[in-house]
Amino acid sequence: VSEPLFTPPPLRKAFSATARIERMLEVEAALARAEARTGVIPSAAADAIARACRAEAYDIEALHAAADNSGNLAIPLVAALTKRVGEADATAKGYVHWGATSQDIIDTGLVLQLREALAFIDGELARLCEALATQADAHRHTVLPGRTWLQQASPVTLGQKLAASLAAFERDRARLAALRPRLLMVQLGGAAGNLASLGDRGIAVTEALAAELDLGVPETPWHTQRDRMGECAATLGLLTASLGKLARDLALLAQTEVGEAFEPAAAGRGASSTMPQKRNPVGAAIALAAATRVPGLVATMLAAAVQEHERGLGNWPAEWETLPQIVQLTGSALVAMAQVASGLSVDPQRMRANIELTHGQLFAEAAQMALAPKLGRDVAHKLVADVCRRAAAEGRHVRDVLAEAEPAKGVLDAAALARIFDPANYLGSNDAYIDRVLKSRR
Amino acid sequence: VSEPLFTPPPLRKAFSATARIERMLEVEAALARAEARTGVIPSAAADAIARACRAEAYDIEALHAAADNSGNLAIPLVAALTKRVGEADATAKGYVHWGATSQDIIDTGLVLQLREALAFIDGELARLCEALATQADAHRHTVLPGRTWLQQASPVTLGQKLAASLAAFERDRARLAALRPRLLMVQLGGAAGNLASLGDRGIAVTEALAAELDLGVPETPWHTQRDRMGECAATLGLLTASLGKLARDLALLAQTEVGEAFEPAAAGRGASSTMPQKRNPVGAAIALAAATRVPGLVATMLAAAVQEHERGLGNWPAEWETLPQIVQLTGSALVAMAQVASGLSVDPQRMRANIELTHGQLFAEAAQMALAPKLGRDVAHKLVADVCRRAAAEGRHVRDVLAEAEPAKGVLDAAALARIFDPANYLGSNDAYIDRVLKSRR
Amino acid sequence: VSEPLFTPPPLRKAFSATARIERMLEVEAALARAEARTGVIPSAAADAIARACRAEAYDIEALHAAADNSGNLAIPLVAALTKRVGEADATAKGYVHWGATSQDIIDTGLVLQLREALAFIDGELARLCEALATQADAHRHTVLPGRTWLQQASPVTLGQKLAASLAAFERDRARLAALRPRLLMVQLGGAAGNLASLGDRGIAVTEALAAELDLGVPETPWHTQRDRMGECAATLGLLTASLGKLARDLALLAQTEVGEAFEPAAAGRGASSTMPQKRNPVGAAIALAAATRVPGLVATMLAAAVQEHERGLGNWPAEWETLPQIVQLTGSALVAMAQVASGLSVDPQRMRANIELTHGQLFAEAAQMALAPKLGRDVAHKLVADVCRRAAAEGRHVRDVLAEAEPAKGVLDAAALARIFDPANYLGSNDAYIDRVLKSRR
Amino acid sequence: VSEPLFTPPPLRKAFSATARIERMLEVEAALARAEARTGVIPSAAADAIARACRAEAYDIEALHAAADNSGNLAIPLVAALTKRVGEADATAKGYVHWGATSQDIIDTGLVLQLREALAFIDGELARLCEALATQADAHRHTVLPGRTWLQQASPVTLGQKLAASLAAFERDRARLAALRPRLLMVQLGGAAGNLASLGDRGIAVTEALAAELDLGVPETPWHTQRDRMGECAATLGLLTASLGKLARDLALLAQTEVGEAFEPAAAGRGASSTMPQKRNPVGAAIALAAATRVPGLVATMLAAAVQEHERGLGNWPAEWETLPQIVQLTGSALVAMAQVASGLSVDPQRMRANIELTHGQLFAEAAQMALAPKLGRDVAHKLVADVCRRAAAEGRHVRDVLAEAEPAKGVLDAAALARIFDPANYLGSNDAYIDRVLKSRR
Repeated sequence: VSEPLFTPPPLRKAFSATARIERMLEVEAALARAEARTGVIPSAAADAIARACRAEAYDIEALHAAADNSGNLAIPLVAALTKRVGEADATAKGYVHWGATSQDIIDTGLVLQLREALAFIDGELARLCEALATQADAHRHTVLPGRTWLQQASPVTLGQKLAASLAAFERDRARLAALRPRLLMVQLGGAAGNLASLGDRGIAVTEALAAELDLGVPETPWHTQRDRMGECAATLGLLTASLGKLARDLALLAQTEVGEAFEPAAAGRGASSTMPQKRNPVGAAIALAAATRVPGLVATMLAAAVQEHERGLGNWPAEWETLPQIVQLTGSALVAMAQVASGLSVDPQRMRANIELTHGQLFAEAAQMALAPKLGRDVAHKLVADVCRRAAAEGRHVRDVLAEAEPAKGVLDAAALARIFDPANYLGSNDAYIDRVLKSRR
Repeated sequence: VSEPLFTPPPLRKAFSATARIERMLEVEAALARAEARTGVIPSAAADAIARACRAEAYDIEALHAAADNSGNLAIPLVAALTKRVGEADATAKGYVHWGATSQDIIDTGLVLQLREALAFIDGELARLCEALATQADAHRHTVLPGRTWLQQASPVTLGQKLAASLAAFERDRARLAALRPRLLMVQLGGAAGNLASLGDRGIAVTEALAAELDLGVPETPWHTQRDRMGECAATLGLLTASLGKLARDLALLAQTEVGEAFEPAAAGRGASSTMPQKRNPVGAAIALAAATRVPGLVATMLAAAVQEHERGLGNWPAEWETLPQIVQLTGSALVAMAQVASGLSVDPQRMRANIELTHGQLFAEAAQMALAPKLGRDVAHKLVADVCRRAAAEGRHVRDVLAEAEPAKGVLDAAALARIFDPANYLGSNDAYIDRVLKSRR
Repeated sequence: VSEPLFTPPPLRKAFSATARIERMLEVEAALARAEARTGVIPSAAADAIARACRAEAYDIEALHAAADNSGNLAIPLVAALTKRVGEADATAKGYVHWGATSQDIIDTGLVLQLREALAFIDGELARLCEALATQADAHRHTVLPGRTWLQQASPVTLGQKLAASLAAFERDRARLAALRPRLLMVQLGGAAGNLASLGDRGIAVTEALAAELDLGVPETPWHTQRDRMGECAATLGLLTASLGKLARDLALLAQTEVGEAFEPAAAGRGASSTMPQKRNPVGAAIALAAATRVPGLVATMLAAAVQEHERGLGNWPAEWETLPQIVQLTGSALVAMAQVASGLSVDPQRMRANIELTHGQLFAEAAQMALAPKLGRDVAHKLVADVCRRAAAEGRHVRDVLAEAEPAKGVLDAAALARIFDPANYLGSNDAYIDRVLKSRR
Repeated sequence: VSEPLFTPPPLRKAFSATARIERMLEVEAALARAEARTGVIPSAAADAIARACRAEAYDIEALHAAADNSGNLAIPLVAALTKRVGEADATAKGYVHWGATSQDIIDTGLVLQLREALAFIDGELARLCEALATQADAHRHTVLPGRTWLQQASPVTLGQKLAASLAAFERDRARLAALRPRLLMVQLGGAAGNLASLGDRGIAVTEALAAELDLGVPETPWHTQRDRMGECAATLGLLTASLGKLARDLALLAQTEVGEAFEPAAAGRGASSTMPQKRNPVGAAIALAAATRVPGLVATMLAAAVQEHERGLGNWPAEWETLPQIVQLTGSALVAMAQVASGLSVDPQRMRANIELTHGQLFAEAAQMALAPKLGRDVAHKLVADVCRRAAAEGRHVRDVLAEAEPAKGVLDAAALARIFDPANYLGSNDAYIDRVLKSRR
């Protein structure tokens, strides 16, 4: 099984078996230092503990195997850490993991992993937005058929398509920015969540630990209030869905029979093991794979959030691999689409040709709206529908059939007719929309 | 099938078949007025259209039946509206639905329904938070066994349990507040999303429509960028999960063998058709039913968000009943738990009795932390574990076995021993946490 | 909210609020008769009860409203039934619902609803299979481009595409046939599942009840073993997914730029409220909407199956609307696709034209396999890949570039070259596959 | 991330990165041999290819890294295999992967992995059923409170509880047996699914390949008909849900305040990092974690099944890690519960004590049914409900209050009263149910 196939290396690293242990040891070291600073344990003990908190010193695989029996990874890690500290300093050994419970270490360690991963995602998302902004501006007048229900509908521009995606991604950035201060919080509650083990120094130690790790201090421990993790999952789920939407659109434009836009070429990318001619849209496939998988995983996170009393039974462990997978899948989709958006190859001529494919049917609404002021929208609608049907049946251009049709004939002169069938004349607020999206970024 | 069984009447009403038509007609009327104000259509036409936009005038069921054939509800509604306007005013008839497409009406109508529903949810959530704040404060020293993995762990207070839930619900309120301005937006894009049908007046009409409906103006139409709807679903999903967590805890406390807290009694509520003695936790069941159903529905919303080009194929309709169901289920859970929290019946004596149930085992960590400064945490851990096992095997109180055990004997005098086994002495930062949560609300 | 928009009328009826009450009354009547036959209650009482079990006699809406308070529909129904029986026969009144619990009535009533719904689904599925079999046979040599990753790959026939779908639907029929005897079972367990209320006559009454309703007798009551319901959900989920796959393929073939196959035309079907020329693939959209929604609902059924002890807390109610929705959505997709498959409109000329679109690139594998016996598959693969790239770059036909390319030149004479680029020569086991599928049906 | 934490070693191995490559090489070797046997390629080439199909010869990690670029694992593997074969035999090199496409190798390889995994699951499931059968028989008269809505309801036996679970698991075995012949099928279709690359020998090669691998021959390739994989996922989903149900029940029985049954003790199992007294129900937690995660993953498999044309875009890769995770999670739950069921520790005295906890309330239905023949079920229901309320309010035993209550007084003599409150007299068809389940296994 292992990580999702297309996980970007930085996210592979952030959630590797080693990184998991590293972050947990980072928390144990910081806890010891925090407790020394607040006078809860001796400074010398904290130093000895911190010195032992290096992942290289531990057998990562053996710890994971032991977790199968103990039920979580912190128990064998604390045992191993205690042993190691004891070898160097018999007194310090007694201060390892002081006042904490397994979940404190696992949750806070996970928060550190998420911080690292979200920083990567922020960077890639900024890169994607930059690329989309450039492309949306560049293609603000690149006309192609708008499509509804996978049928040609009315002309649009590639610029507006990309700008609409960009606006969604900017909303995702706002959501991620709002998520961060809620998510990046220390979890420290001890056995049952009131830090009874630290007497009256619970808050002080929590604040010191938060300072050590540069994390926030929650109002109260959140061991079985999992909405922070759920929000992280859902926020990434929204981002992945928007990435999937962009990927699907581009893959549809790249179809052999459409041929309007393509992923950037790269050596060996998108080849087939048996079809020599293939150049598959690998980036879109990666994003769509993620968009297919993440919804079910988000549902798991929400379902897992109903955790009993002061520690859930099975539902907390249900989060352990689920949330990292969501992050990795989101990352894979994001990197893939940032790359695609940056190097998108566009064929404006083919777009024009596709507009002409139906001999004017694409301009049916334009014709209707040109006739409506005189005939009324409803009459115009019926008239143009008839004209379109007739044109299709007779294999003629809609313009030519329209030119002969009563009562359109009297309403539209030659110039008006010509205007209808030029897509540049039927883009409405296209430029305003693109500008509004681009401006809102600044 | 129909709505979820326990849907609160206001949410039943907000999403009824009639309300759906009403909101769509409200949008058509507002569009006509907006277009009159911006000079796109004659004022007289707008007046005639607005007059026809009353749901009572239409056969709601027939419209729904017709939608099965046309593929959406707007098509038969626009046809019926056009017919009705035409009966009163032949000219106005031609201006019905001017420049709009079905999705504009359906989406904006849904936004109006959501606004109404979210206002109800906000109110109930405030009521729940108020109740929890009162209870958390009142029960700040009501001691009961903390439980992890469904096993007694270490003492906590009911106050902190409820305060932790309250803190989660306050985060939900913050999320809902952030959602609202992103969600409550006009959708107006016309056939393919650029409002080509309105020429250069698209933005002006959109702004006027937004003013009419008191909604926001998006940077660009969002017909196939569905993150707003997804965020609504996910935000309610987080809220429902937190409600489920509270419900599960209270239901566990209400078990016959635990008996620490109960839902408020109400005539006929929670009876059984065959067991005369039963008083079932109906409120918790409603919340847990919602928490079981909503995750899969949120996943559907995320999956449905990958909508093709300018109108999705099947995935847009997949939202139509899914999002209202999420709202209704969330509402049912919320109303149920607000009622439970307000009238929660607590049995502090039974809590105390349950604390005593294990003859001191609950105070194992307290004993360990009392010994640790002298013996080290690791030695103390092992010692207390042995003492606990021995006490259990011999059917004795942990205190008595501990009093005899070397090397604890030398470390703990009688007063220290007594202190360990009083839960009031082992609540750590309990009060501080409750205060922090209550303060953060102001 | 209400039922899914496109629910076929028979499934709307099977799960209507009235039908739900009807089926529950049917169970109460059958139970009374069964208990009379086994000597548990007097025959006269059974007759009086059966006479009162007519849905018209009850206020359906009031019963549903009362269920909100009691927690399930059986409690107010049993109360109303008891009252009504008492009005006619004071003695009989005491024998209403004898020995049963709410869940017995609700579950067995649901089984009756499912039986009716599955019979409808079986019929429609047979109709779909029949249509596909006819089309697969008729189009066994209708050649079109095979497509992988949405890119043209190598030629296939429409016949094989449809035959592959047909084979999947035949597997669905086998699964439904295996499901039926497991699913169509009486549930009768009384308060806690051992029918203690019926003393030593539990099995006899269960067998008599099963005979009355023509259902099976389970080994043991299944009140909290929900795998039967889960299997029903999952089996329909598999069917819906296969329907979605067929729908997606046909919708892709119907794209304006592909134009190879279309849904049957029907008056007003697939029109647009603003685009006069549109004929949208409504059938595919209905099926894809179902395929988008059902997976999350199946997940809900699986999650809900973890029901506590002898009656779940909230998870049982979570099934009540979820399973009917799955059935209705499956039904809507099935009816839509049966209609599409029966009247599918195919354009073989456009298929041929699309094959020619890439000037021979579609035959790259054919060329490779023609060269491979002489050159080896790997050398041939690289050679043809180069030829394809060159042809594309130079805007030439692959055949012409291949004819000049060393070492292909020596290997392929003119006749061999011509053979490569005729799709009829590169269909492999196409006919055998179609025959195998068709034969397996008999 | 990596595999689910508690994956049993045989399932860890079956789906390891190495095993994945091994199975794919096994398919390539078998394909070469099958093609030699059918005269498609030279025998010497097949031998050379088979010799190179040893996983040790390849850099597993490098292959996975290369897959990130190529989009699937078969492409770099075929390249590496071709290179290696070529080093030994220049002619044979040209026959590697003859006529096949990546998906053929990946899908058939996965089928081999699934066969191995399902064999393991079958074995563990048999072990679980055996354990449950033994326990159900042994505890057929071990009485404990039946519980509905987490409230004590009416007495049941542990035997019937376990028998009901056993019956569900036997249904799962029947489903798995029905799944196997549908699932364990060769996939061989070549580029677009008609094996055009093999001319008229497609069926012969497929049959030979199936014989080599001991798999079935499908009617037609199933590259984009994914119902087999979906059925595998769903069948395991049903099994996991039933495991979750058993786990939840046992964990609830193991609660400190209930204390009726416990997981078998094992050194270090279920310890806490801070609470010395804890013995957590680790087995149940593992099963519940799986039951929380699998539903969302099954939904993913169903959603992923809507695969376009002859190869899906992104949805096929969405299966790659999802299905193995489902298998591993199911396996982890199964092994955990088989272990728990085998060594279950039961406390019949505590069960009896819990029955007495409510001073007779548990026997309310028994009292009602004893009175009903004389008073009618409805009158008896109301009477006993009053008696129960009174008893609870006055802190008395229901028996004593009942003995005084009119009109019960006249109906029940002392012996009848005593009979009501002995659980052994109120087990109904308990023995028959257990026997029926046990007999159905033979």
